[in-house]
Amino acid sequence: MQIRVGYDVSYTLPQPTAMILTLNIHHSRVSDLVRPDHLLTSPSVRLEPYRDGFGNWCTRLTAPAGKFRIWTDTIINDSGQPEPAAPEAQQVPPEQLPSDVLIFLLGSRYCETDELSDIAWRMFEHAPMGWGRVQAICDFVHRHIAFGYEYADPTLTALGAFNERRGVCRDFAHLAITLCRCMNIPARYCTGYLGDIGVPPAAAPMDFAASFEAYLGHQWHTFDPRNNARRIGRVLIARGRDAADVAINTTFGAHTLDTFLVRTEEVTGT
Amino acid sequence: MQIRVGYDVSYTLPQPTAMILTLNIHHSRVSDLVRPDHLLTSPSVRLEPYRDGFGNWCTRLTAPAGKFRIWTDTIINDSGQPEPAAPEAQQVPPEQLPSDVLIFLLGSRYCETDELSDIAWRMFEHAPMGWGRVQAICDFVHRHIAFGYEYADPTLTALGAFNERRGVCRDFAHLAITLCRCMNIPARYCTGYLGDIGVPPAAAPMDFAASFEAYLGHQWHTFDPRNNARRIGRVLIARGRDAADVAINTTFGAHTLDTFLVRTEEVTGT
Amino acid sequence: MQIRVGYDVSYTLPQPTAMILTLNIHHSRVSDLVRPDHLLTSPSVRLEPYRDGFGNWCTRLTAPAGKFRIWTDTIINDSGQPEPAAPEAQQVPPEQLPSDVLIFLLGSRYCETDELSDIAWRMFEHAPMGWGRVQAICDFVHRHIAFGYEYADPTLTALGAFNERRGVCRDFAHLAITLCRCMNIPARYCTGYLGDIGVPPAAAPMDFAASFEAYLGHQWHTFDPRNNARRIGRVLIARGRDAADVAINTTFGAHTLDTFLVRTEEVTGT
Amino acid sequence: MQIRVGYDVSYTLPQPTAMILTLNIHHSRVSDLVRPDHLLTSPSVRLEPYRDGFGNWCTRLTAPAGKFRIWTDTIINDSGQPEPAAPEAQQVPPEQLPSDVLIFLLGSRYCETDELSDIAWRMFEHAPMGWGRVQAICDFVHRHIAFGYEYADPTLTALGAFNERRGVCRDFAHLAITLCRCMNIPARYCTGYLGDIGVPPAAAPMDFAASFEAYLGHQWHTFDPRNNARRIGRVLIARGRDAADVAINTTFGAHTLDTFLVRTEEVTGT
Repeated sequence: MQIRVGYDVSYTLPQPTAMILTLNIHHSRVSDLVRPDHLLTSPSVRLEPYRDGFGNWCTRLTAPAGKFRIWTDTIINDSGQPEPAAPEAQQVPPEQLPSDVLIFLLGSRYCETDELSDIAWRMFEHAPMGWGRVQAICDFVHRHIAFGYEYADPTLTALGAFNERRGVCRDFAHLAITLCRCMNIPARYCTGYLGDIGVPPAAAPMDFAASFEAYLGHQWHTFDPRNNARRIGRVLIARGRDAADVAINTTFGAHTLDTFLVRTEEVTGT
Repeated sequence: MQIRVGYDVSYTLPQPTAMILTLNIHHSRVSDLVRPDHLLTSPSVRLEPYRDGFGNWCTRLTAPAGKFRIWTDTIINDSGQPEPAAPEAQQVPPEQLPSDVLIFLLGSRYCETDELSDIAWRMFEHAPMGWGRVQAICDFVHRHIAFGYEYADPTLTALGAFNERRGVCRDFAHLAITLCRCMNIPARYCTGYLGDIGVPPAAAPMDFAASFEAYLGHQWHTFDPRNNARRIGRVLIARGRDAADVAINTTFGAHTLDTFLVRTEEVTGT
Repeated sequence: MQIRVGYDVSYTLPQPTAMILTLNIHHSRVSDLVRPDHLLTSPSVRLEPYRDGFGNWCTRLTAPAGKFRIWTDTIINDSGQPEPAAPEAQQVPPEQLPSDVLIFLLGSRYCETDELSDIAWRMFEHAPMGWGRVQAICDFVHRHIAFGYEYADPTLTALGAFNERRGVCRDFAHLAITLCRCMNIPARYCTGYLGDIGVPPAAAPMDFAASFEAYLGHQWHTFDPRNNARRIGRVLIARGRDAADVAINTTFGAHTLDTFLVRTEEVTGT
Repeated sequence: MQIRVGYDVSYTLPQPTAMILTLNIHHSRVSDLVRPDHLLTSPSVRLEPYRDGFGNWCTRLTAPAGKFRIWTDTIINDSGQPEPAAPEAQQVPPEQLPSDVLIFLLGSRYCETDELSDIAWRMFEHAPMGWGRVQAICDFVHRHIAFGYEYADPTLTALGAFNERRGVCRDFAHLAITLCRCMNIPARYCTGYLGDIGVPPAAAPMDFAASFEAYLGHQWHTFDPRNNARRIGRVLIARGRDAADVAINTTFGAHTLDTFLVRTEEVTGT
């Protein structure tokens, strides 16, 4: 299967503005690209790639004042298979976790483990450990939060989403990540593309899609509490502690977002 | 000058409990130690060292159920000089920051840059850039927050401290860090020992002391908005994005803290 | 049980000489010490502790020209139990090894994995995986090498010991480590004290004792191919890739070793 | 100046095989990349990044049985200037070396400092200290070893190269590193790209190029005893104790190398 992925974003900038972009397809999927997902800009500026502490490739640039557009449009090969499930995956006790995984147990900007720990233990102490417990958390989050683009709020945290019971996919992910961490299951935030492949088309315009990975059985496994299903055609962009680490654009200065378009769709033969 | 530093902490644990301890003096000060600051436990347990992603040496252990005590007591050589000031240190524009410094511009668990950005710009846009701006932030935080041990709250964030106008040293640090980051000045959280050296003795029992470092003139510089002074005899333990990264003890399970004692005092000749 | 451990080493130095000493009991056993194992020198010199990349605490000093003596004498509490065996411990496939463990699969100064790989696979391909395979390697090494202090040679490697079939405890360890690594089992070198506790007293003077740890079932386990037994009262000093990383003394210049004494004995009531 | 760098390597694997690849351009040069040097594979497999203990970015993967190809092709900006020389750089006495540099004085897999110490002191005791001594070592190694691709032997060590007087660039580097370490000058192994820029084109097919860094005047300086010249356009991939730490591919199982191609060439305007 081939999937067309891309975005087109434009800004108006009152002055030359430094930006960090986390917009390239994750290096672990680059071999699947039919053509490179070069980040294109207009006007053309010097792009400086770097790798953040999580291994994501990011791009730095300084955009000139005025209109500034960033886009890509590419095609990626995909297995066309749903994400694998591993119901037998065991929880790794904290003392056996690799030391570089421990950071994914700690609190982070949008994941207040300290605030939600008691609630998590009350709710999930009796759930089966391992895969079952993560699935129970996803089931809960999926039921508990009402999805709506109108609820998008870049300052909303897991605790906020838990209390307000509404949000977008990143809030589903933040709440599930936080509950997993409270239960001593390492969890990290993922952002990427996710099209309506194998599911009815959504009415809303597309956006990047948040999911998360939980560390079970000495491997990372993908979960998606927003959709709560093993999906086809998810394309990873970046991973981090939460959305703060993998903002698609961190802009150092005032700016206006003029247009924002994300595309993810199966390439059909016709 | 020699400074005696140490701590003595004890817990009651209902069951065997995994712990991560960030309690060793920072590797950058190790060569000043008169003797190693070994972490001692009673009962004795297997200790496993590792270095976290910020370079701090951490210790993992599994404590048995029952009473569990952790302590150290050592002596460190110190210059006896106040921390240097560098009023000429310039701000580094975002596009020139080393890529591994960029993470210290982002939001983190206790530093809600997104929530405080507008406030920061309103307050500090006209402060001189560089050292002067960080000092202006420290002056503000020092005045704005009332210090009191009774305000200690492990879930309090920079925004909370800004609104409630009270806190302990870590809250002073979190607010100043957040305001610096909002102004595009990288800032990282520091924890360590700080005795009453060169200042009148405090009435309160001692604790670990939070401060922060700001990146100016291509170097990190120490600031302490709680005391708002260049101090003598600060001994660094660990650095991270905020207090979530350098908790002295991350405990994976329920526990009671029975005693908590920190010592930092000049070794005198008598 | 209490064990008295210590050493007494003296040198004649033609000129002031920098030294690195890896002579302190490993930090993970410091809580068991009845009194600190301070490294004592005559004449007294400034000692500078530091931590190497493996987490061992080391000591740097500059010894003056002339006679220079280093010693310690202390007592450590011990469980008195033989080292635990874990015959069920599984081999961790390379793709699931923590990334900081991978270095213990590579070749190192005295462990030529490249030279011994074919031999290792021929000999151990059909041994049961996991604990059984490491034990089979220890059994082989124990039989293959003749022990003798007269064979001590600081430049002897695993390949040399394999070919010459003789050596001291460090050669047994190097050969077993190398064979484990060839079979994709991470293995690291250990040095420490080991007295004749629970075994008939040896005729020879004591020395530090080499052993190794293999990574099985997501934990490190101790093996001792020289004695090929679960022993009582082993006291760890340091761990590394091989003996090159944990030399008790690395001396930067010419020197004469005048005396060398190591003591490890059970403290009895009389 | 822009330099096109890349490689194309293919294997036949009898069974699914875990690999560690150290093939990305070093993080210190990443901001010079015109586009990321993503590691591409066919078939596409899951790539997992990690940073080794020397700070190099590595990639882990499990290749399927059958044909497996790995390649990259990218462009990097370069100053076009020869590597700087610093003839005034002083030797740092061992007691003043930073503790994390000390490991680069010890023996390692291909650098038998113990075997070559006497020879080193006899040859270089009267060479000027500091830069001059390292240069004298490079001059000696350059003269002493005959270069020839037919001498390539992955088990050849510094001692072997010294005795056999032949080898490839990694053997030149290993011998010079060993001699430096014997003279108490920290030295570390480097691998990277090096094209025929500013020099006559070589007849032989390209390969990765070994060089080394010596620690003088509190900085690391590049030396290349194979070419014994300050070259233009060297692109670092990784650093370690010797070639064992930075193998481009560590493969956990039997395999056949089918093709191996490295490209490094100036991008010209035509």
